[in-house]
Amino acid sequence: MSRRSLHTPAPDAAALRARLDRARDAASDAGTDALLIAPGSDLRYLIGQAVGSFERLTALVVPASGAAPALVLPKLEAPGYTDVPTDDLGVDVLTWVDGDDPYALVAGRLGKPGRVAVSDTMAALHVLGLRDAIGSAEQTLAGPVIRELRMRKDAAEIAALRTAGAAIDRVHARMGEWLRPGRTEAEVGADIAAAIVAEGHTEAEFVIVGSGPNGASPHHDVSGRVIENGDVVVIDIGGPIAEGYNSDSTRTYAVGQPRDADVAGTYEVLRRAQRAAVEAVRPGATAQDIDAAARTIIAEAGFGEYFIHRTGHGIGLDVHEEPYIVGGNDLVLEPGMAFSVEPGIYQPGRWGARIEDIVVVTSDGMEPLNNRPHELVVLGS
Amino acid sequence: MSRRSLHTPAPDAAALRARLDRARDAASDAGTDALLIAPGSDLRYLIGQAVGSFERLTALVVPASGAAPALVLPKLEAPGYTDVPTDDLGVDVLTWVDGDDPYALVAGRLGKPGRVAVSDTMAALHVLGLRDAIGSAEQTLAGPVIRELRMRKDAAEIAALRTAGAAIDRVHARMGEWLRPGRTEAEVGADIAAAIVAEGHTEAEFVIVGSGPNGASPHHDVSGRVIENGDVVVIDIGGPIAEGYNSDSTRTYAVGQPRDADVAGTYEVLRRAQRAAVEAVRPGATAQDIDAAARTIIAEAGFGEYFIHRTGHGIGLDVHEEPYIVGGNDLVLEPGMAFSVEPGIYQPGRWGARIEDIVVVTSDGMEPLNNRPHELVVLGS
Repeated sequence: MSRRSLHTPAPDAAALRARLDRARDAASDAGTDALLIAPGSDLRYLIGQAVGSFERLTALVVPASGAAPALVLPKLEAPGYTDVPTDDLGVDVLTWVDGDDPYALVAGRLGKPGRVAVSDTMAALHVLGLRDAIGSAEQTLAGPVIRELRMRKDAAEIAALRTAGAAIDRVHARMGEWLRPGRTEAEVGADIAAAIVAEGHTEAEFVIVGSGPNGASPHHDVSGRVIENGDVVVIDIGGPIAEGYNSDSTRTYAVGQPRDADVAGTYEVLRRAQRAAVEAVRPGATAQDIDAAARTIIAEAGFGEYFIHRTGHGIGLDVHEEPYIVGGNDLVLEPGMAFSVEPGIYQPGRWGARIEDIVVVTSDGMEPLNNRPHELVVLGS
Repeated sequence: MSRRSLHTPAPDAAALRARLDRARDAASDAGTDALLIAPGSDLRYLIGQAVGSFERLTALVVPASGAAPALVLPKLEAPGYTDVPTDDLGVDVLTWVDGDDPYALVAGRLGKPGRVAVSDTMAALHVLGLRDAIGSAEQTLAGPVIRELRMRKDAAEIAALRTAGAAIDRVHARMGEWLRPGRTEAEVGADIAAAIVAEGHTEAEFVIVGSGPNGASPHHDVSGRVIENGDVVVIDIGGPIAEGYNSDSTRTYAVGQPRDADVAGTYEVLRRAQRAAVEAVRPGATAQDIDAAARTIIAEAGFGEYFIHRTGHGIGLDVHEEPYIVGGNDLVLEPGMAFSVEPGIYQPGRWGARIEDIVVVTSDGMEPLNNRPHELVVLGS
């Protein structure tokens, strides 16, 4: 026996019911006959809970019209869903036991669909099991349907993101307690991870301590490298709070005066770029506008080839979700959208820097959810 | 930026190369033109590493014949794969950046396949992306191919499972430190989780503390229920060690003398059933034989309807993997197969009990990897 669980302080039944209704409408608008949502953030968003074991199908069936939604779940998992107000939501619960065919159970709710959408995170095991059970229906992704809902956060979701942002700011404020010469990245990372939990997260979802040359690898996490006086160190950290919403913030520190003479000038370019991108956030701007605001400044300063990733990603129940702040994305920003603004400049083999804040689009601009200083923080050596 | 990482003490290049060769042969035997393996235990098994972010495709392409295997990965993730001996393995590395089409990159390695198999854990986002890129090829699951390799553990894998089993036994041995009347399941669970790590696991993957009526729900984890004198408590715990292999062991405890008069007699039936199932494990027996050995004893004692799950599951890099010890599975057991034997009897609303050991099939029988006493352990009240 084993399972991972999410202890969800869930939205109330009325809020969930409204989400389910909007999901049905969005499915209908997308020409999809039904959404099939497996455990993951989409399911948690729609019914407030999302537990399950990998190999046994749990899926919420949301017909675009006609029949009521149905939660298909292994009888063993039923206790994990007792907090879901299925009666208030008008959701039928269909349990199955080992030996039953859960895919046939889903198909039986669907009639003769022409197109069904499976959640983006559903495992291939179930995607292909459902494909075989639903006959000639075309399978598409439910992500593009659900993200239309999820990327527009309501007040309670923004409040949760604000709480998460303040919690990770408190961790950054304490960095001087841990980040010192002679300690390994892993040692520093372990202290940060404990502080992430102590400051109000349910777990330390990720901890990047990229010192010296490791800072030039954007997806480095931690290593046994011993931090030296003169290092520039990228610290990128975050995790979920109890409501499931995540923090994600990066600051770059110097341990003593930076060894490399180009740090100050280059960092100043990055700081201007990040600020320009943040200040470009407002309703009506596009995602690619925000990316361009940062990228133009970095490119004009001659560092374009050292900014090797998109400028940001949406955040909510997932650390990475829509909207992605990337060239080519002409999505128009609307109030309630929340995402990171995190340009970086990476000097291979020497050092790197990144500055990351989460911002929320407001009616007339944006609200930053991270508020630590943006200068290069020089810690005592 | 964020990612989850696996710090893998990986098998050496020769061992990995042998696995890749066997995977190609198994794909060929299965009539599959290529395996497409996403991050997960299958990928870790084949190349010793498995990192990646959800939304960017990382996939190992393993043609059944012809072209060399190729690791397709986002350039950002490349640092996570530097420890993989791709040259020794004869694996080409193809990186892509945001804006490229990674599905086309995969398709370009495949020629005109008739059938390709995707790993069971691959997310629908990538399953359907690949489906659209590979034209008319049929998609099947790679799980049935790879599991033929993974369920037959080699000596190093069994050694790792043995280490994990001994570590979780040490946690059970300390249960009296934590399990006392007046404490909540959650408090006890937090202490157990810390001990799971302290005794040598990299994380506490799952902790079930099912006291009193909660013990009758096999997938309960922990709650705010206060443990009382007279409670029977199911403790089901485990997690991975650094090599990635998992422990999973259940013991049932009584806090003081059990309140319910039927506990002693019922538990004795369970103990006999679990022992009979363990003793039935040998090469040549089938998975369903082991299930039947436990189920028959429980049913003949009149408790058949209270044993509401299969008898066990394979274990290795995943907590749940093949072989599943369940009625209808006529898989013939072979040396090197490792799985749980964990019958339970659940009295709804009152109490439950389960006993779980991991065993490995040997040349002439089995080796138990959990060796704590099987009697109901009565802790001081």
